[in-house]
Amino acid sequence: MKIPLDRSPDRTRRQPIARQIQRHVERLISQRLLAPGVKLPATRELARDLGVNRTTVALAYDELVAGGWARAHVGQGTFVADQVPVEIEAPRPESPRFDWTGFLSKSAQVIAADARRRLSYSQVPQPAPGVISFAGGMPDASLFPTDAFRRVLNRVIRDEGRELLQYYPARGYPPLREHLAGYLLRFGLEVRPEEILIVNGSQQGFDLVARTLLDPGDFVAIEQPSYPRAMRVFRAYGAQLLPVPMVAGGLHVEYLERLLERQSPKLVYCQPTAHNPTGLSMSAAARQRLVDLCGRHRLPIVEDGFDGTLFYGERPPAPLKSQDASGLVIYIGTFSKILFPGLRLGWIVAAPELIERLETAKDLADIHTSPILQAAVFHFCRQRLLDRHQARVVRESARRRNALLAALSRRMPTGVTWTESQGGFSLLVTLFPGMNAVTLLEQAVQRGVAFSPGNAFFVDGGGEHTLRLSFSGIPVTQIDEGIKRLAETIREAQRQPERPARLEEPPAVPLV
Amino acid sequence: MKIPLDRSPDRTRRQPIARQIQRHVERLISQRLLAPGVKLPATRELARDLGVNRTTVALAYDELVAGGWARAHVGQGTFVADQVPVEIEAPRPESPRFDWTGFLSKSAQVIAADARRRLSYSQVPQPAPGVISFAGGMPDASLFPTDAFRRVLNRVIRDEGRELLQYYPARGYPPLREHLAGYLLRFGLEVRPEEILIVNGSQQGFDLVARTLLDPGDFVAIEQPSYPRAMRVFRAYGAQLLPVPMVAGGLHVEYLERLLERQSPKLVYCQPTAHNPTGLSMSAAARQRLVDLCGRHRLPIVEDGFDGTLFYGERPPAPLKSQDASGLVIYIGTFSKILFPGLRLGWIVAAPELIERLETAKDLADIHTSPILQAAVFHFCRQRLLDRHQARVVRESARRRNALLAALSRRMPTGVTWTESQGGFSLLVTLFPGMNAVTLLEQAVQRGVAFSPGNAFFVDGGGEHTLRLSFSGIPVTQIDEGIKRLAETIREAQRQPERPARLEEPPAVPLV
Repeated sequence: MKIPLDRSPDRTRRQPIARQIQRHVERLISQRLLAPGVKLPATRELARDLGVNRTTVALAYDELVAGGWARAHVGQGTFVADQVPVEIEAPRPESPRFDWTGFLSKSAQVIAADARRRLSYSQVPQPAPGVISFAGGMPDASLFPTDAFRRVLNRVIRDEGRELLQYYPARGYPPLREHLAGYLLRFGLEVRPEEILIVNGSQQGFDLVARTLLDPGDFVAIEQPSYPRAMRVFRAYGAQLLPVPMVAGGLHVEYLERLLERQSPKLVYCQPTAHNPTGLSMSAAARQRLVDLCGRHRLPIVEDGFDGTLFYGERPPAPLKSQDASGLVIYIGTFSKILFPGLRLGWIVAAPELIERLETAKDLADIHTSPILQAAVFHFCRQRLLDRHQARVVRESARRRNALLAALSRRMPTGVTWTESQGGFSLLVTLFPGMNAVTLLEQAVQRGVAFSPGNAFFVDGGGEHTLRLSFSGIPVTQIDEGIKRLAETIREAQRQPERPARLEEPPAVPLV
Repeated sequence: MKIPLDRSPDRTRRQPIARQIQRHVERLISQRLLAPGVKLPATRELARDLGVNRTTVALAYDELVAGGWARAHVGQGTFVADQVPVEIEAPRPESPRFDWTGFLSKSAQVIAADARRRLSYSQVPQPAPGVISFAGGMPDASLFPTDAFRRVLNRVIRDEGRELLQYYPARGYPPLREHLAGYLLRFGLEVRPEEILIVNGSQQGFDLVARTLLDPGDFVAIEQPSYPRAMRVFRAYGAQLLPVPMVAGGLHVEYLERLLERQSPKLVYCQPTAHNPTGLSMSAAARQRLVDLCGRHRLPIVEDGFDGTLFYGERPPAPLKSQDASGLVIYIGTFSKILFPGLRLGWIVAAPELIERLETAKDLADIHTSPILQAAVFHFCRQRLLDRHQARVVRESARRRNALLAALSRRMPTGVTWTESQGGFSLLVTLFPGMNAVTLLEQAVQRGVAFSPGNAFFVDGGGEHTLRLSFSGIPVTQIDEGIKRLAETIREAQRQPERPARLEEPPAVPLV
């Protein structure tokens, strides 16, 4: 191992050079940047690197050995000692730490306030041993076709690596965009590749749409409950959210219509299919009414396309975008709920005029999404590996969803209700009025079960007596036991007075 | 191939279902979503998928054959015709296209204005056959260690794929952050892994810093000339740029000092090492003066760390960040100028308090950077493959830079000057006063040589008589011939009156 010591000593400083070298190495060791047992560079080598006399380095090494920082073995060299003297502080000149608080942008302040609010209510505990966790919305990594993907990626780098590791146009890998045009047709969406922009997961889709359309003070109508990460993005760009309740599986169109008499939101955000957290799906008729209403009011729709393949029972109606003759629907899609969320791959479908703007925003945000990953996903799809994987995930998810619904029916006290998830990976449970899901979570974790408190999915509070159960990441064999524990916790809480919720550390894993 | 026809026909529409199917397939064919010769699904299969009677599908197919859209082969099936009838328009209901112009955010409007301005001056032509191009700032893909990277990535997915393809914490892959802490020590930067955030290339670094610190109306001091992509990001967040001239290799600190008597910029952006476009490097003394000045004025510095390894001759002084006792320097680094820009991998080093804010911004922007790529780069570094590659790139770049300087000395008319690049991949040429590099570019391309007009690197115009020559992507054998052509173009232009520059298409490849 080469040691990071090749900075020239500062000859203008008072400290002798040998002493500078000695102190520098001591600092590296005490900060664990040089681990016990690591061999220091030969004096000759380091002297050459630093442009100093070899005896100077030897002097420094002698001091290190004398101080217990290193040990010398004749003929072998000098090694970092196993037992290191007491930790020393980095001897940076004493200088007051720069205080960034007053320097934050308004957006950063909004984000920070949102983060503090999240801390106060929606803590998803880290999975502890023995805890059955219905929290989090990740696909089950044990189902990942990791090896098939490895082979595809290997092939892509071999065949196209040189071009795909270079800078690339912002819009994305053309074969993937063409493939997506065909893929989306399955859901009834007729789009051309020019209407598709590849982005880093749907999260970046929200971000690019928000920065391209929203100014501080704008309003965004949003179905309630909704996806917290989308709400946070809109708020970060200074927008205020106008919650629209859900009715019969989707956004309450007539409520929105009345809202539009008083307010002029800049856009409306919704998840008509496989809604997170409820798992419900908007009817075809309501979809049509929503698109018509927004057309009359010139109100752009951000349609979170999520994943239309993950449904149980009846196929969901075609996306809003398929009814969109004038081009006011922006459709955001991703494979993240099925395939490798870690790749961070998604897409935006929009009118060519808007796609151009979004592409410029993408170019400024991070130039482009890694083309080797785009190409790998394309080949993965083209070899029908995605279809095969999807079929498997849908089958497995359906089993888990059915087991969850059965367990809820069997175990839950009368009065507790839940949404009958038709798609996606979760459902929303409504507890007794006055019961607080955050308080309940603490007690639940003690009984070995976890979930996401529901208030994270509501605009500015509300939903305190709801909770989300995610069934995507949990083996079917644990579901009944998990729900049994949850039902016991709820029964126990009914008998106890409410306790205030405790603040905890933010979750180490993203809430999705 | 399965054909994307599995949308249920709309039974509420007036059109008979067979006719709907027929029109749908016609549309797919005319839009080339079904290619000539493709086999249509068997009638039985499609009927089942669509939930209609088999005779309905057979009827639709008969009509397709009758209309010349398909041909039927008894016993084999129905195929898309090779010669397709005239193209038909998608029969979407006639609806006026939604006009997005009035819906764009102020930021999007600024970005669009910037894009239009770029169109008017800095067009880098597409590399045409025979044209020797000094435009663009990409590393030479022919030097990429693609195969070594393929093996590392393959290994990473095999060993850690399951965890690394799942959602991941925003801050980045811990071993990479630890490795970077050691790597940065080589340049004299002592940082802890907690002070590092992994981002999608330095571009996302600019973006996250800007959104976290800038509000519309803020000022950003920036050395002139400077990196256009950084300027555009600051402007997109509503900031106004205050150009600070360069002197003796770097930002003119005394000029900035005088500027600070009248103005209070929110931050200062500079590239003290391997400056793009000039290739110059700021002296150690000037660096110290800059950090001191900014400390006195509580003015945060965004230090574009670029790549300190790519230098010719003397090693550049340590980064500003290494002199930063109070934590007001934000250092943005990347491997993109050396290794695989297509991966989009970079990092921000900042005070822990600020890194936390930047991490939240990153989490909202795209949740995290692909961990398999982070892990692959980590292992690539740890196996010393990066060191080996860097040594090779530096050697090769030095050859090209020396050849370029020699050719300029030999070929250029007296009066034309250039910066003596000490690092990075480019230098800046200053033409005769009154000569316009945009006009010159048109003539140069006709003579078979290209470059980047200099005004893109100046705030709001200026630099019209400068141009950037990039030597990173051009074989050493072509350099002298390229400069010969450029010198001829300049001599020719001296004899001709100025012509106005033409607007052209935006470049298909990102300007970096």
